[in-house]
Amino acid sequence: MSGAQPANGPAGDGEGTLAIIAGAGALPWEAADVIARRRKIVVFAVDGEADAGPASIETHRIGPGQIGRMRRIAIEHGCRDVLLIGAIRSRPDFASIIPDLETLRLLPRIVRAAVGGDDTVVRNVIGLFEQEGFRVVSVAEAAPELLAAPGPVGARQPDAKHEADIALGMRYLDASSPFDVGQCVAVVDGRVIAVEGAEGTDAMLARVADIRRARRFRSEKGAGVLVKRAKTGQDMRSDVPVIGADTLRGAIKAGLGGIAVEAGRTIIAERVVVAAEADRARVFVVAR
Amino acid sequence: MSGAQPANGPAGDGEGTLAIIAGAGALPWEAADVIARRRKIVVFAVDGEADAGPASIETHRIGPGQIGRMRRIAIEHGCRDVLLIGAIRSRPDFASIIPDLETLRLLPRIVRAAVGGDDTVVRNVIGLFEQEGFRVVSVAEAAPELLAAPGPVGARQPDAKHEADIALGMRYLDASSPFDVGQCVAVVDGRVIAVEGAEGTDAMLARVADIRRARRFRSEKGAGVLVKRAKTGQDMRSDVPVIGADTLRGAIKAGLGGIAVEAGRTIIAERVVVAAEADRARVFVVAR
Repeated sequence: MSGAQPANGPAGDGEGTLAIIAGAGALPWEAADVIARRRKIVVFAVDGEADAGPASIETHRIGPGQIGRMRRIAIEHGCRDVLLIGAIRSRPDFASIIPDLETLRLLPRIVRAAVGGDDTVVRNVIGLFEQEGFRVVSVAEAAPELLAAPGPVGARQPDAKHEADIALGMRYLDASSPFDVGQCVAVVDGRVIAVEGAEGTDAMLARVADIRRARRFRSEKGAGVLVKRAKTGQDMRSDVPVIGADTLRGAIKAGLGGIAVEAGRTIIAERVVVAAEADRARVFVVAR
Repeated sequence: MSGAQPANGPAGDGEGTLAIIAGAGALPWEAADVIARRRKIVVFAVDGEADAGPASIETHRIGPGQIGRMRRIAIEHGCRDVLLIGAIRSRPDFASIIPDLETLRLLPRIVRAAVGGDDTVVRNVIGLFEQEGFRVVSVAEAAPELLAAPGPVGARQPDAKHEADIALGMRYLDASSPFDVGQCVAVVDGRVIAVEGAEGTDAMLARVADIRRARRFRSEKGAGVLVKRAKTGQDMRSDVPVIGADTLRGAIKAGLGGIAVEAGRTIIAERVVVAAEADRARVFVVAR
């Protein structure tokens, strides 16, 4: 079968079963739950990344050597649309892949996909699915209710100093955006204290806590903000910035005053939990 | 005495005793040793930062509450020039300062100096010394032999992939330069893996080692480079980027292929040790 032809019938846009490829975290299951209210889904949980989800959702575990199996199951379910969601923390270990036949055919493309920065990988993975006849959809299309709406999530709002830190963080991330590095920074009293690299947001927040303990900067508790936004021109069909309860807990431990994310281009997972915990800790979570 | 008048006589430029204000690391002592060959020096070792130096060098310990004492001793020695050298890792804890009379007078200015990003602090500290009648000199002026000359330090040279990583790192640091964040990044196979914030270079390198262990990126051992350069427009009278044996060891532990620094605007401390250890570990150290 040619990779250029639709693999699985002419379902209308937004129609038919949605294949959800689930990475790490609670988010894929939250998305599955939301989307399942309006269309059929089947979840492919990436081995070594995805947590276990609820038994009520049809889930297939897939390793990097099982692209063929995934493709076959997706076609059996009449899937035309694919949603990539959740973090993929490690790159596949090609040496240990025992591929099925389909994967063997695709392997050179998978290897190419796994080289380069995050954006490159995501673009390549999307291209690979598209060549196989699938349509890769964005969270904005499949589950828009997960995206942050402008305004505060809990009761608390940033003060004027926080606002200045938010603006600085947004400008920094805009400037570093072409380099495809991290999606977040910690800014305290007008100073960028930490920049996210490949370690991820949680590790970066742990570092802010360490830096504060080591007195590498001084500030009041409750000063400073975690700022997270999508890269300029980022493909929103994957790698959408996400914050959730763990992010909030990390920001609280780091002594920050709150979290600011870009409205409409960031996902706030576990929003009710986030709002309640933010209020309890007297920190803000706000989308701009 | 007015702060606008010279505090300590009209010594010619580069003449008279040089007051060296020593922060952390071996570098201040290396600088003192080099400079003492051609002019008299007196060292003020910052409490809680500076290591002990050789007994042959006249050294006075100073705390943040002892600006008056430092000024008096410097004037007694006929110092007109001041060199700020070595890392200052923590901001003064104003609550615990028991100031002498002179410090009491200067305290509002010291407090202003200690707020803001690194550049702001350095600019303010330099301004404070200048208002007291001192001339703040740069390493380039006082000890130019400590600055990195273009070319490799050991026997090894970067390969074509390393060159691409060096170029990317230099461009990144140029772009982030207006934000007064860190002075270095780790780049591996075309990807910026880690960006230095307030944690410093050593902690950033430890993170690269962690990230590699956690398989957040894949690459051959010996791929990638630590790139360090001065910020655009940085005041070279302080906060000159420094690498030394510890930096090299950190880069080796992180599995990087080498270190690239900006020629003429970066200090390579312990150069002989760095060259020998780099050769032994088969990594490069190069200035561009």
